[in-house]
This record gives sequence, structure tokens and C-alpha cells, in this order.
Amino acid sequence: MPRGVSLIDFRPILFIVGILLCTLSVGMFIPALVDLYYGQSDWIVFSAASFVSLFVGGALIMMNRMDNLKINSRQAFILTTLSWVVLTAASALPFAFSDLDMSYTDAFFEAMSGISTTGSTVIVGLDTAPPGILLWRALLQWLGGIGIIVMAIAVMPMLRVGGMQLFRMENSDKSDKAFPRATQIAMGIAMLYLSFTALWAILLWWAGMTPFDAIAHAMTTIATGGFSTKDASVGHFDSAAIDVIITMGMATGALPFILYLQMLRGQGNALFRDSQVRWFLTIAVSIIVGLAFWHSETNGVPFLTALRFTSFNIVSVMTGTGYATTDYGLWGPFAVTVFFFVMFVGGCAGSTTCGVKIFRLQVLYEIAKIQLSHMLRPHGVFIAYYNRKPLSEDVTESVLSFFFLFVFCFVVLAAALGAMGLDFITAVSSAGTAIANVGPGLGPIVGPSGNFATLPDGAKWLMSIGMLIGRLEVFTVLVLLFPAFWRD
Amino acid sequence: MPRGVSLIDFRPILFIVGILLCTLSVGMFIPALVDLYYGQSDWIVFSAASFVSLFVGGALIMMNRMDNLKINSRQAFILTTLSWVVLTAASALPFAFSDLDMSYTDAFFEAMSGISTTGSTVIVGLDTAPPGILLWRALLQWLGGIGIIVMAIAVMPMLRVGGMQLFRMENSDKSDKAFPRATQIAMGIAMLYLSFTALWAILLWWAGMTPFDAIAHAMTTIATGGFSTKDASVGHFDSAAIDVIITMGMATGALPFILYLQMLRGQGNALFRDSQVRWFLTIAVSIIVGLAFWHSETNGVPFLTALRFTSFNIVSVMTGTGYATTDYGLWGPFAVTVFFFVMFVGGCAGSTTCGVKIFRLQVLYEIAKIQLSHMLRPHGVFIAYYNRKPLSEDVTESVLSFFFLFVFCFVVLAAALGAMGLDFITAVSSAGTAIANVGPGLGPIVGPSGNFATLPDGAKWLMSIGMLIGRLEVFTVLVLLFPAFWRD
Repeated sequence: MPRGVSLIDFRPILFIVGILLCTLSVGMFIPALVDLYYGQSDWIVFSAASFVSLFVGGALIMMNRMDNLKINSRQAFILTTLSWVVLTAASALPFAFSDLDMSYTDAFFEAMSGISTTGSTVIVGLDTAPPGILLWRALLQWLGGIGIIVMAIAVMPMLRVGGMQLFRMENSDKSDKAFPRATQIAMGIAMLYLSFTALWAILLWWAGMTPFDAIAHAMTTIATGGFSTKDASVGHFDSAAIDVIITMGMATGALPFILYLQMLRGQGNALFRDSQVRWFLTIAVSIIVGLAFWHSETNGVPFLTALRFTSFNIVSVMTGTGYATTDYGLWGPFAVTVFFFVMFVGGCAGSTTCGVKIFRLQVLYEIAKIQLSHMLRPHGVFIAYYNRKPLSEDVTESVLSFFFLFVFCFVVLAAALGAMGLDFITAVSSAGTAIANVGPGLGPIVGPSGNFATLPDGAKWLMSIGMLIGRLEVFTVLVLLFPAFWRD
Repeated sequence: MPRGVSLIDFRPILFIVGILLCTLSVGMFIPALVDLYYGQSDWIVFSAASFVSLFVGGALIMMNRMDNLKINSRQAFILTTLSWVVLTAASALPFAFSDLDMSYTDAFFEAMSGISTTGSTVIVGLDTAPPGILLWRALLQWLGGIGIIVMAIAVMPMLRVGGMQLFRMENSDKSDKAFPRATQIAMGIAMLYLSFTALWAILLWWAGMTPFDAIAHAMTTIATGGFSTKDASVGHFDSAAIDVIITMGMATGALPFILYLQMLRGQGNALFRDSQVRWFLTIAVSIIVGLAFWHSETNGVPFLTALRFTSFNIVSVMTGTGYATTDYGLWGPFAVTVFFFVMFVGGCAGSTTCGVKIFRLQVLYEIAKIQLSHMLRPHGVFIAYYNRKPLSEDVTESVLSFFFLFVFCFVVLAAALGAMGLDFITAVSSAGTAIANVGPGLGPIVGPSGNFATLPDGAKWLMSIGMLIGRLEVFTVLVLLFPAFWRD
């Protein structure tokens, strides 16, 4: 072993990856059964992919079994990124094996876009695709959504990723006591997630969707994922009731899930007492109403119609869901610019959303305010607050660095996509939509009525990396590129 | 007087503004004399504008004369922004009065673009414009350039603007002792600035420019301003020698002027020992060589030709000068994306450049590195360094907040320009070029071979505000919008 490189014990990492792969292989049986039910030959594809995943996963478990499973923070970083990549690689198999004639690049892109709840697609012809594949896409986003909530509550705060230490639960440092409590919370949130999905499936069914479409859209709505079963996305249904239900669902998915649990435990106003929730709603409503006025004035659309379309599409882009009910790229240049920047906003911490996230905007706002106060009174003492609690320097520097690295990754990705030959708006909006895990880009090629199918393979791989970086809160991935990480 | 609003003594502020206005009115005599020499009737325009400025400035001095001139930091903030706005308003008069048939909006835009050393122009037909007007544009940038260096050394560090406290000189806290020293340094830098201008004028004359063009370009080169006397900018001369000379000049203007003084005082290696200078050169050379390779490969241009054009235009955009020797917008989408992001880089602190600036990128890089180390070893102690000195928390938070507010102002400006009806690339590149004080934007309308003349009036005012915010390091202007600033 070369000097200075410390031995990282990969066994517990591979063991857990093995468990996750086996779980995924079980998940693949669901679309297999659905295809069998609908008499589609694709059930073989899912069975084959499931078998491969089970074999690899099982082998990893067997080879790395150990009595006392404990991981340190370096192993946790590797595990987080590695599991996300391995699960994506396995989830891509059904796409690659299917009749859709997808290259593995396309399959990997679609799988990453699913698991990261991005929602960008390279599949043209969803309307005629086999139901198993459509369900698989929805299932990937659904699993990715619950996966990220659990990670945001249990893993990220302990890894101190980009200010997430703000959401560290009491006790979480003492890992022995915290574990049962974390498990309990994770179970509660999983039940809640399932119930929300069922509720939205029933609502969408009631509003006129087929049971299959209702279930698929409920899954991708609550996960703020944005994969639809239709090429025209939610616009296909052209129903105001469906628009309203999905808008509510995306907003529900964008709020901190732990607050729903607190509400169920009797703290009725937990949700609306939280400053993050209030900021989220204020930002969303201001942009929606402002844009609806502009749209109504500029394009001569009745105000209520404008409001219906702006509320659905702004909530969809802001939460990083990525459904569309119309091509807002055609509303005019102002709308394009607004949608571009709204992409980066995101939802609350501990939700299924991505992007910069509301709590970081709050912290940035607080710090900017303090800085300005400090300029006026250099010897004054000013303390930044979040949710009525003082912010530690550790959190503020984390959040500020996150913002810088997020912008930095966006710039590098946009330039790299430009180098692949993408035009300016396609390059910058594809970079933004990948790193903020939104879904559609802007412009004629990757806009809401476009598709990522025609991008060069290199661009698809770059965007896949971008989605991974964005989904895992930037730091988690970048820390692995840091030479000191691998040294003792 | 309403409760809670404290009395700010405006007298010393108005007194100094008066002095600056009188100085400007003297400056207006130079183009008047030149026009008189060339037999242009525009000498009347300059005399009239000079008279107005002298009258207003003189009145301000008379009315606010006081024995003991002392200003506190609140007054300094007001003075900085107010003087910049008032001088711009006065400098716009010759444009508005001239035969060029400019509205006051256009005149103000041109004057702000001059004084802020941006270099965006609304004048079409420079090739046939009267020499007085061309000289006036060059003179505005030249005065703006020396003005900002003096401010960056004497004012900004004391106002703690966006991390500029890093460049506070020893003693500068004790205002009594510092004053003579600051004056001495300011005089030294002014002499140096004048000598550089003379040197570059001679070099450009030697390379084939007329004496008039040589002087005008020398002034706007050393100020990294970018106003040319030709519609085709420096491309008009189509001379490799001129390209090289101006590239060197822009780079000279982008380095910290105080280091040149130190070199003259015998510290021969002061310039290249400074980490900011090394970063600046490394970033510039990497981008230039990379882009030259790409340009040569993609567009089939000989490598040396590609190098000539990339080095000139990248240095021009990176330093925020804004000259162009070709329409790099036509090189392809990658070049457009690269030029877009390079706009924001800027040069060194204490130079005539704008943008985010190199020292902030260094600080951001250091902090990101520390954050990643901190994630690996939560209980470790890591210290960020700048130029071999530890960075205080005060500086790091200042720089991080600057970055956030800079991005925030860019986003708001781009969205507002979108609301004025500008298309996406015009809106985002105009916002970027204004806030980073570069000059040309991107796309068919405001690109290097375009012009800002056709933008709506509202967009011109918004961009003028953007140039002001960018030039005064964001905080200096934003602090005035802060209600607490005006309270006791």
C-alpha cells in the first residue's frame, strides 16, 4: 500500500450497497407483474434485470458479511455516492433491455433522471410505451424521493453537508441512542409518504385519470419527480381539476416531511409556524401572481387562465418536479428568464425537492442583512437567526460555500455542455435543470415541449453527473474528488 | 423630524460633490479645446456643459462651506454613490447637447458606461463623430479608472465593502496619521497612471494609430474601459501589433496598481510574489490557450491566428474592458458560453477592473477547501489563508455575502430586462455586462458587433443602475436601500 493512503474498509459499504441492490431487484418485480397482467412481453426484461441485480447484490452481501456493522463518516460519504451510482446503473438495465431500443447511455440518463427525481427524459413515444416501463420510471422517482427524505433526515445533517447540520436532531451525535429514534422517524415518514401517494392517486382517479395514470402520476407528484406517462406531460389531460390536484401535490412534496409527522402528533400548527414553509409559500405565490398578471397583460389571456397555467408550471419548476401543462417557452422572453431562475430555487430541506433550497436562501438573506448592518456599525454585534434560533458560524459558512460551489458546478457544467456543441440557451438551461434536478430545460430543443433524446452522448453523461451532484447536495460528491479525502 | 430618523449632515457631502463637479467642468474644457482646434462647432456644447457644472458645483461649495471637513462612514457611503450619480448626470450633458441627437436617457447611459469603465455604447457612427465627443468618452473612462483605484485604496477598505478590508493599509484606522500617507500613495498612483497612459499612447502611435486614436485608446485601455473611436472597435485597425499592445495594456490595468509603486520603490518582485497576480495570469492563460485550441480545431483557423484573437478578446472581456477585434459570438456555442462566464471574473483588487475579482475567487476557493476538510474532520481546526496571511471570519463572510449579492443583483437585473421584452440571451448577457462593467453583451442585438442603441429606455436606465451597483462593489449602493441606514 502506498504511503499516506489510508485503508478504507469497503466491506460495510459494499454490504449495504448489496442490500440496496437486492431491494431494487424486488422492486423490479412490480413492473414485471404489471407487464405480465397486461400481456406485455417486457415482463421478461424486468425479470432479467431483477435477476442480475439480485445476483450482484447477493454476492456483495455474501462476500462482505460482518458481525458488527459500523460506518464512519468517510465511509458514509463513499456509500452515499456509490449507492446512488450503482442503483442507477442497475435501474438502467430494464430500459437498456427493453424494446424501446435505447443505448446504455440513454438508459443510464433516464435512470439517473428517475432516481434523482429530475424528470428529464430521452424517451420519445411515452403514449405507446409498455406499461411496465412507464411504471418503472414512476417507481424510480418514488423510491428516489423517499430515499432522499430519509437521507436528508438521517445522513446529511451528520455529514454536515451544505448547512444541513441545521437540521440535526437532538441526540443524533450519540449514535447509540439516536438510532432507534431515527428508525422510528424514518418509518413514520415512509408511512406518510405511502399515504400521501395513495391519497393523490385517489384524487387523480376521481378527477378523471385511469387508475394506472393516477398511480403513476401520484408517485411522481409526491416525489416532485415529474416523469409523466404521456409525451405531452400533464398537459395531455387538459383538466383544471387535475392541474389543481397536482399543484397541491407538488407543494405537499416540497415541504419538510418531518413537520407533517409533528402535526400528526398533535402540534397542529407546526407546519405554518416554520419560517421555511412561510418563505416557500410567499416566494411561490409572489412569482405566480406576478407572472400571471404579466402573462394576462402581454398575451391577452384571461387572468384566471393565466393563473392556472402559471401556478401549475411555476410550482412544477420551482419544486424541481418538471411537469408541464403548456410550452411556457412561447409566452415570451420575460417568462423564459423567470423560469430559468426559478429552476434554482427548490423547496424545503427534508422534502423531495432539490435546488438551492429555501432554508439556504433564508440563511443567505440573514447573512447579507448582518453584513450590511456590520458595515454601518463596524463594532456592533449582530447575530443571524433561523427559525428564532441563532445561526452558528459553522452553518453560515457551510451555506455560503454551498451556494458558491453550486454556482461553480453550474458554470462548469454549462461550459462543458457548450463544448459539446449545445447552443447557449440549451447549454445553460440543461446545466441548470440537471444540477437543480428540475426536468425540462428551455429553448426549442430541451424546452417543456422538447426532449433530451437528440443531445450528444457526452452531454447526457455530463448531465447525469450534474444530476448526481445536485441531488446529493454538491459537497457529498465533491468531497470524494478532494485528494485529502483518500489520504490518512 | 419624524422619530427614529437621524439627522445626517449633508453639508460635507454636498461640499465634496461640488468640488468634484468643478473639477469635471475643468475636464470638459479639454474636448472643447480639441473641438475648437478641429474647427468643430461642438466646442460650444462642452463650454455650455462646463458652465452648468461649474455653476452647480460652485453653488454647492459656497452653500456648504465649513471649517472642519470630517465625514463619518454613513456620510462616506452617501458621498460615494451620490458623487458617482451626480458626476454621471453632469457628464451626460455634452452628449445630450451635441449634434448626435441623443435623448437624455441615451446620454446618461453613455456617461454611466464611461465613468463606470463599462464600455457599452448607444452611439452608432463613431467613425464620423466629432473628435470632442470621442475624446470626452475616453476622458470619462480615464477619470473613472483613476477614481476607482483611489477609492479602492482609500475608501472601500475602510467601509469594509465585500472583503475589501483585506486591503486596509496599516495605520488606516488612525485617520490622522493615515491621511498624509494615503494622499502620498494616491499621488504616486496618479503619476503612474498618467505615465502608463503616455507610454501606451506612444506605443499605439508607433504601431500605426493616428495620435488622436492612440491617445484615446491609451486612456480607455489603461482604464480597462473599452470605448473605442471606431464602430468596429479595435478590430477596425486589424493590426497584430496593436492587438498585442492593447492586450498588454489591459492586463497592466487589471493588476493592483499599488504593487507597481512597490516595484518602483525597489521591491522588484512585488508583482509576481502576489498570489492575486499569479491567479489572474494563470486563469487568463488557461482560458486563452484552451479556447484557442478549440477555436483552431472547430473553425479550422491556424493556431496562431486563433491565439491572437482569443488572447485579445478574452483579456478584454475578463478585465471588463470590452474592446473587440472580431465577433466571437460567431465562433460557435462553446465560445458564447465561455465568454458569458468570463465576463464575471474581473481583475485584481486595486485595479481599474470590475466583476467578482480575483481575490474573491481565491477566498471562495480557500473557504470551499476548508469546508471540505471540515466535513472530513469535524473537530479539526482549519485556517484559510490569503497571500500567506490567515483570513479573518469577517473577511470570509464579507466575500461570501458579496458573491451572493452579486449573483442576486444579476438575477434581478436579468429578470427585469426580460420584463422589458429583451430575449433570453440579450437579457442575461446585458445584465452580466452591466453588473460586471464589461461592455458588449452576447447575441445578435448587444453582441460585440451590436450596440445598445435599440434597447428600450427602461432597459437603459436599469442597466445604468446595474453599472453603478457593479462599479461600487454592490454593498456600497445596497446599504443605502437598507432602512436601518437612515434610522438612528
